[in-house]
Formats: sequence, C-alpha cells, structure tokens
Amino acid sequence: MTQFQIELIGMFAAVLTTSAFIPQVYKIWKTRVSDGVSLSMYLSLFIGVVSWCVYGYLIGSPSVLIANIIAGMFQLIIIYFKLKFK
Amino acid sequence: MTQFQIELIGMFAAVLTTSAFIPQVYKIWKTRVSDGVSLSMYLSLFIGVVSWCVYGYLIGSPSVLIANIIAGMFQLIIIYFKLKFK
Repeated sequence: MTQFQIELIGMFAAVLTTSAFIPQVYKIWKTRVSDGVSLSMYLSLFIGVVSWCVYGYLIGSPSVLIANIIAGMFQLIIIYFKLKFK
Repeated sequence: MTQFQIELIGMFAAVLTTSAFIPQVYKIWKTRVSDGVSLSMYLSLFIGVVSWCVYGYLIGSPSVLIANIIAGMFQLIIIYFKLKFK
C-alpha cells in the first residue's frame, strides 16, 4: 500500500470524525438547548485535539494534523454555544 | 525528540480524547435522557474511529491505534444507551 493510499484512509477517517460534530453544532444552534451535551466533555476533547495536532506534526501525519485542526475549530464553536445558551 | 517522547504526547492526547466520553456515558446512564446527544454524530464517529484504527495500524502509530479502539468502545456504549432510552 502506497503512502498516498494510506493517507486516503486517514482522510476518510478524518472527514467522518470531524463532520460528526456538524449535526451537534446545528442542533444546539437550532434549539438553543445544550443540556444533553457535557461541557467537560468538549473541554477535554479540545485539549486532546491540540495535543493530537502536536503529535500529528511530530510523526509527520497530514491526516492526524488536519483532522484535529478542523475538529478543534468545531469544538470551540460548540463550547461557545454551550456557554452562551447555558 | 525520541520516538518514546513523541508517543507520550500521543498517549496524553489519547487519554483526553477518549476519557472525554466518560462524563457523557455517565450523564446518559444517570438521567436516562439523551435528547441533546445526536445519534447521527455517534454513528459517524464510530465508523470514523474504525477507519482511524486501520490508518493507525498502517502508519505504525500505537497512540492512534489504541486511542481509537478505546474511543470506539465508548461510542458503542453511548449508541446502545441512545437507542435504549430513546
């Protein structure tokens, strides 16, 4: 398997795990209700994805780096809604 | 930076992003309410982490592989609660 093919799998995984946050963002935006979403979960996730970015950079994995930059941005939006519509 | 030190950063990231699901599991278990949690989000996440496992194995990253095996198990538990206490 070539490096390119491997990164295609990584990018496929990245699209799924990052786009998974889109319905959550949409739901909170539409209903203004975020009771079922733990703030602690999103804060831990955010610190985690920042660490994953560092790790992805160090091992030279574009998929890990890009996926976590995008996931981190989505999580910041959710944390903002969570605090605003508390 | 040694390979060991890099994996320590990866494991730190792994602990944060996987343990982030524990409060969510606890909350759903305790309240039996999962209205704020999107089923579509967890299903996408689950397919995504399976792909990350394949990717982690192919690039030889223990952190990516282990983190996603554990995250996948937590997500299966959340999906189970989500369907049961709908």
